[in-house]
Amino acid sequence: MTLLCDPSTGLRLAAYLDTGDPLPEWADAVIPIENVEPIDVDQQPSANPRRPHAIRIRSAVVPWSHVRPIGEDIVATQLVLPAGHTLRPVDLGAIAACGHTGVRLAKRPRVAVLPTGTELVEIGKPVRAGDIIEFNSLVLAAQVEQWGGEATRFAIIPDDLEAILEQVSQAAESHDLVLLNAGSSAGSEDYSARVVEELGELLVHGVAVRPGHPVILGMIRSGDGKIPIIGVPGYPVSAALTGEIFVQPLLARWLGRQPDQPGTVSAILTRKVTSTPGDDDYLRVAVGRVGQKFLAAPLARGSGVITSLVRADGIAVLPRGSQGLPAGATVEVRLYRNPAELERTIFAIGSHDMTLDLLSQFLAKCDRRLASANVGSQGGLVALRRGEAHLAGSHLLDPETGEYNLTYIREYLPGVPVKVVALVDREQGLIVPSGNPKMLQSLADLARPGVSFVNRQRGAGTRVLLDYQLRLLGISPESIQGYSQEEYTHLAVAAAVASRRADCGLGIAAAAQALDLDFIPLYHERYELVIPDVYFHSDLLAPLFQVLADPSFRQAVATLPGYDVSRMGNLVAEVR
Amino acid sequence: MTLLCDPSTGLRLAAYLDTGDPLPEWADAVIPIENVEPIDVDQQPSANPRRPHAIRIRSAVVPWSHVRPIGEDIVATQLVLPAGHTLRPVDLGAIAACGHTGVRLAKRPRVAVLPTGTELVEIGKPVRAGDIIEFNSLVLAAQVEQWGGEATRFAIIPDDLEAILEQVSQAAESHDLVLLNAGSSAGSEDYSARVVEELGELLVHGVAVRPGHPVILGMIRSGDGKIPIIGVPGYPVSAALTGEIFVQPLLARWLGRQPDQPGTVSAILTRKVTSTPGDDDYLRVAVGRVGQKFLAAPLARGSGVITSLVRADGIAVLPRGSQGLPAGATVEVRLYRNPAELERTIFAIGSHDMTLDLLSQFLAKCDRRLASANVGSQGGLVALRRGEAHLAGSHLLDPETGEYNLTYIREYLPGVPVKVVALVDREQGLIVPSGNPKMLQSLADLARPGVSFVNRQRGAGTRVLLDYQLRLLGISPESIQGYSQEEYTHLAVAAAVASRRADCGLGIAAAAQALDLDFIPLYHERYELVIPDVYFHSDLLAPLFQVLADPSFRQAVATLPGYDVSRMGNLVAEVR
Repeated sequence: MTLLCDPSTGLRLAAYLDTGDPLPEWADAVIPIENVEPIDVDQQPSANPRRPHAIRIRSAVVPWSHVRPIGEDIVATQLVLPAGHTLRPVDLGAIAACGHTGVRLAKRPRVAVLPTGTELVEIGKPVRAGDIIEFNSLVLAAQVEQWGGEATRFAIIPDDLEAILEQVSQAAESHDLVLLNAGSSAGSEDYSARVVEELGELLVHGVAVRPGHPVILGMIRSGDGKIPIIGVPGYPVSAALTGEIFVQPLLARWLGRQPDQPGTVSAILTRKVTSTPGDDDYLRVAVGRVGQKFLAAPLARGSGVITSLVRADGIAVLPRGSQGLPAGATVEVRLYRNPAELERTIFAIGSHDMTLDLLSQFLAKCDRRLASANVGSQGGLVALRRGEAHLAGSHLLDPETGEYNLTYIREYLPGVPVKVVALVDREQGLIVPSGNPKMLQSLADLARPGVSFVNRQRGAGTRVLLDYQLRLLGISPESIQGYSQEEYTHLAVAAAVASRRADCGLGIAAAAQALDLDFIPLYHERYELVIPDVYFHSDLLAPLFQVLADPSFRQAVATLPGYDVSRMGNLVAEVR
Repeated sequence: MTLLCDPSTGLRLAAYLDTGDPLPEWADAVIPIENVEPIDVDQQPSANPRRPHAIRIRSAVVPWSHVRPIGEDIVATQLVLPAGHTLRPVDLGAIAACGHTGVRLAKRPRVAVLPTGTELVEIGKPVRAGDIIEFNSLVLAAQVEQWGGEATRFAIIPDDLEAILEQVSQAAESHDLVLLNAGSSAGSEDYSARVVEELGELLVHGVAVRPGHPVILGMIRSGDGKIPIIGVPGYPVSAALTGEIFVQPLLARWLGRQPDQPGTVSAILTRKVTSTPGDDDYLRVAVGRVGQKFLAAPLARGSGVITSLVRADGIAVLPRGSQGLPAGATVEVRLYRNPAELERTIFAIGSHDMTLDLLSQFLAKCDRRLASANVGSQGGLVALRRGEAHLAGSHLLDPETGEYNLTYIREYLPGVPVKVVALVDREQGLIVPSGNPKMLQSLADLARPGVSFVNRQRGAGTRVLLDYQLRLLGISPESIQGYSQEEYTHLAVAAAVASRRADCGLGIAAAAQALDLDFIPLYHERYELVIPDVYFHSDLLAPLFQVLADPSFRQAVATLPGYDVSRMGNLVAEVR
């Protein structure tokens, strides 16, 4: 601090300060440096030529001008943060600014996660037939940590009542909550209910929630008191949802805060769903915004399908009493995602092709999400007509003309101007077990006795192709065993063949290769993207065309068997 | 697994399985236990009476019934998660389910946070006059961790060019980014720009953003390469916003993900704001929903006021070129909070009283937030008329009748049915420095030469009271030094007295006590809540009445000096 003094009296008159410096006791105003003019009245040269020892003030100074008053921020007794608040970075600053060196926090609840099951193997250990990789404890522990608890993952406990009793008792002594995973159903080795009864009190066995039905709630002894125990069902989706429905609110209550309250949107169901009337049905959905509408595409329902939770953008609860909802019904979706993310979601409904996964991967790098629902080519065109998709993948052959898609677009989308862009040319053929044990050569073999088939659903381009070729060959569907057994994707067809449910199915080479199956090529076809003009030039879709033109994307697709990318990105047709 | 065999051939026919067990190789269907009838054909007794060795099947079984096909979840080559995805608990499950034991993750960027300034003291160390508690590094480090980086907080470096150079060079060797806090302005000890120039390249000095103006961006040497350095301004709000504006997007890019995209709402400004036309102005606002409208109440503007960030529900950016916006203008608010939280926010606009802080504290326990904007009693009634608040605190004396509020309600809220509920009776008086050095006794002393006053803003109930009493005493406002110096809260008035900007102010006893000032009681007054009927019976406000009836709340208020809680919660009047 360079002091300026009155040479006659020695009184301090002014001092140089930097922005943010506290005001000296003797001062009562600050003059901005641009209003100060250095003058040379002092014999003694200043140590700093930019900071002379005498100044002239260019304009009048009002007391307390350019002084930030104390109390501008916060003063004693004023509330800094209410109770039950989760501290954010700026809150730490405010606490420190008030002179506090610490605050009282809620204790993080200690949660024991105990996986049980003789069939379980740890992640990374060799998996033999009949083994199941144990990952529910990983998911539950990560959920607990995310919601503010401290999780302890126990080692896998075999289906042995004594062993489970011992581990649960031990966990209860050092934790605030025990999650006992699997064994909550009524199977022969489902010991959870007995364990809870033996160690305390069984309060609830089974809740009217799907997935998640066989939940157990109880209180067990811990030291002189009792702690809650939750019997978590074994199916992965049930386990994760049990965490959301039962564990999260409990942790929030212990932490003195509100459970996370997800955003919600009203969305239109893209297809019919059925529901068990006795239960609240937690329907996982992909959500996108098309035009002004939010759309919810139901995902796989199985409680074992953990990827349905991974892909879910949210949950629509169909309340008990409901037998289901028709396509077009409005549902309230509790979002897993920030609503802003939905604004950059490309919503594709239509035919399934394996390049869509790669496309999703590449689009993610361009700040776009691809949400795709597989309803077959015709279903995609119907979705476009209803304004429920940004684009539809389609490979519908017109047997009359040999053309792809155009006939169908004119039929399904009258008055909707669209552009048709090539994605890939691909081979369709028979997917058969490795070595082709039934020695199948063509579709004619499907009618052979002892050959079972797995079909695609009505409306799928592959189904249209099959029906067309069968007609050409004069084969009636009734003569094919398994014709009515329908799957929704090429991979599901391949999986049916791999699991011996069928001897063959019609599909693409890449699906056969993915499951180490053999492939008998039969037809070439064009898989195209149908895009309404209204989205063709949108910001949302711009990155799609960048990806289609990207050599590294083309190369990635070309490595899949049976794909030809030479026409990728070409504008095939404009239909008005 | 209990096997059932054909006694003649020894062939396996069936086995008992639990839900979720894998299907044995030889089996091709599952029969639910309720369709199985035990029969006693076997001489050998079963080890488990519930699991006999012979069964009858009650209904026909189709191959593959009750079998979950493989591939229902995910099969080889299918995309599990796209690149650039932040892993959630269920994602860990899906990765493990696919047999992966690990995935490649983006490396967490290492960020060095260096606080500089001779005036700084560490949190918890003794603070002398002129010292500033250093907490910016705490906030910046917490931000970095929240955004996925790893932060290193360095010890405070004094304003010494050599010392700063040495520490920055050292930090650069082991980090991916250096945040050099303060010293980015043009003051005498603001070395940041010189440090960056000396160690590398200064790219930007000053950005058109308020608060946050004097940001420095540069690249400095690190090993064989260069790393970025950001000179972060010293004012707490500027520092935190610099984090949001510059650090977060950089970390997101390094982590291969999108920066957090906050939700936004369109909200109506509750009062006029001015803006520097040359800069993007980051206005902190409290947000609430009243009826169908979202409202944004501007908070303190000062860049030193970190509590304005703590209280902010969001940020409205007034773009450069704008000179400000009038009350009633619509602004786009980037939310810091989940929109669901806004649904449980009670938006109170009106007079300031210190019990509102306590009320906020108690309401937080009932799942309600209280957002209060201090615009004075009259301003509160105007806000109610505009439908911009759920309630207004008011203490407006009608000199004619001696009544509080009713006259003003009839004048300001014609046709708006409201209920008036007592909050507290309280003392108003002169807030003076400890010991009352100017020996002030009444408002008559305000006109004495050498006595300076700090006033409340027009429309405040306290101002109405002052003006009324001055009229009674025959004192003209012009005769009072400081009459035009206005503050918005009782605490701000007290802070002005405490910092010697004024000798006295009119306010409440609790504000004087909070800052260790003396208080000369002069008047009693009634502070009431004015609540439109439309909200009086709402779910939103129900917890408010619970709190007003809560003895522990009344007791907490009663401990504040000058408060009488005997009428608290009483319905004082209904005005239609």
